[in-house]
Amino acid sequence: MSGDPEAIAAVIEFFERSIPFNRFLGFRVERHAPGECLVRVPWRPEFVGDPERPALHGGLSATVADTAGGLACLLALGGLDHPVSTIDFRVDYLKAGRLEDLLCAAKVLRLGARIAVVRMELYSGSTDEAPIAVAQGAYAVTRRAASRGR
Amino acid sequence: MSGDPEAIAAVIEFFERSIPFNRFLGFRVERHAPGECLVRVPWRPEFVGDPERPALHGGLSATVADTAGGLACLLALGGLDHPVSTIDFRVDYLKAGRLEDLLCAAKVLRLGARIAVVRMELYSGSTDEAPIAVAQGAYAVTRRAASRGR
Amino acid sequence: MSGDPEAIAAVIEFFERSIPFNRFLGFRVERHAPGECLVRVPWRPEFVGDPERPALHGGLSATVADTAGGLACLLALGGLDHPVSTIDFRVDYLKAGRLEDLLCAAKVLRLGARIAVVRMELYSGSTDEAPIAVAQGAYAVTRRAASRGR
Amino acid sequence: MSGDPEAIAAVIEFFERSIPFNRFLGFRVERHAPGECLVRVPWRPEFVGDPERPALHGGLSATVADTAGGLACLLALGGLDHPVSTIDFRVDYLKAGRLEDLLCAAKVLRLGARIAVVRMELYSGSTDEAPIAVAQGAYAVTRRAASRGR
Repeated sequence: MSGDPEAIAAVIEFFERSIPFNRFLGFRVERHAPGECLVRVPWRPEFVGDPERPALHGGLSATVADTAGGLACLLALGGLDHPVSTIDFRVDYLKAGRLEDLLCAAKVLRLGARIAVVRMELYSGSTDEAPIAVAQGAYAVTRRAASRGR
Repeated sequence: MSGDPEAIAAVIEFFERSIPFNRFLGFRVERHAPGECLVRVPWRPEFVGDPERPALHGGLSATVADTAGGLACLLALGGLDHPVSTIDFRVDYLKAGRLEDLLCAAKVLRLGARIAVVRMELYSGSTDEAPIAVAQGAYAVTRRAASRGR
Repeated sequence: MSGDPEAIAAVIEFFERSIPFNRFLGFRVERHAPGECLVRVPWRPEFVGDPERPALHGGLSATVADTAGGLACLLALGGLDHPVSTIDFRVDYLKAGRLEDLLCAAKVLRLGARIAVVRMELYSGSTDEAPIAVAQGAYAVTRRAASRGR
Repeated sequence: MSGDPEAIAAVIEFFERSIPFNRFLGFRVERHAPGECLVRVPWRPEFVGDPERPALHGGLSATVADTAGGLACLLALGGLDHPVSTIDFRVDYLKAGRLEDLLCAAKVLRLGARIAVVRMELYSGSTDEAPIAVAQGAYAVTRRAASRGR
């Protein structure tokens, strides 16, 4: 179920271009594999949440975590034919995000017939340092019969 | 500890104007009381998360929930002298948000010496209908001795 | 979908008697309605989690919250024909539980075709006081066609 | 801050013997290091949560996750002088637990001045297989000045 390259390209295109809020915030898929992805959010001064420290707004981390988790599910399912929606998720903030690109790595822990569980890690600037936040989400997945030749 | 009116006005001003991400997204404080608030996010087409249904992006709900929870803590503490930061939070999505104003009601359940627990409810268009999402967060609070005459 | 009385009695009987861990811990259904329940855990000295304060073990609160949430789903579905399992849940502890009966009120917030979301509140001794913990869980529900005459 | 061996032995002794609910359920510390531990819960027939599959009760997983997370904090802090209490935690169930020993690995992700964040993984029978549940918790820690020569 790793998806043909065309179906996967459509997932990335959809994520980056067809979801208005993702596009508005500038989300970019930096790496992807079945059930996994790394999303980059290029830095913008509008993303500051604490002007005094200063630090990134936690809500941006939450938004990209939620969204990257859904993308990891689509990549596990192999394409856009199988709708995915977030049931719930939790974020634990570990330290303040710096005023740099935000990165989110997401990995599907379990892909069931109806539910997927995904873990996300957020990084400031680079994935080489310890994460600034960790998240966990449950997603409803709908597996549809193969279509368009798949 | 309900705060003098000037200190509370400074909290609202800070929330709406001095936090760049809140300003970027257009968050407005519609109602407030000690430990409680109602935040409105006026609708913008950039907020769409699912262009097919279409529906609001869940990340916006998560962002406003996280932020409104912090505001409710500041309102409970009576002013900006006592820093507040999110430890973690969880969102459960109940139904798709319509393409209308998003509202978030937050209420402090417990205000401890170091930790506050806040419950949030998200509404689409009006608080008269059932919520579209519910959230719960823990916040670190730092109580400082009164300063600058407050 | 409120269930005939016999089906509901079977749910209560199953919860209290047929689930070994519930029976081991002494869970009792004190009140129930479609989508709602109140579960009582009569006090036992083995339930202490902090012998110095002393206070109730938080794990007992978590266990009863998880379980009462599942019961509330079964009560919403009207009987045991529709299997329910916990996807995930979160507990926020508000204050130490006293060495008294533990009570858990659970209420279904949303019952979807496949997912239910439930909110739980935990009380020490009586539901007249403020809760000692609040919880939120997502449950997978399987709606089966009516059987055995239902 | 890894603690002298005597202080660490006192933590283990406290965890296994002095917490009545841990003792009642038979929790045993199988491995430990600063900020990490592996807790084993030897199988007992009372732990069944679903008599039909049959499967382990999820509440037992939640209880051991909450508790092992607190132990990992004490091990990071180096002894019992620094009180730890759970603020909140979340469990995601990945698959049914078998009727075997339950294992919980906990690891502190962040140890701050007042808050620690811990990740837990639950296993059925052996840590060589994929986890049956994953959890994340926030803990309030109180760092006290060294005492008794430490």
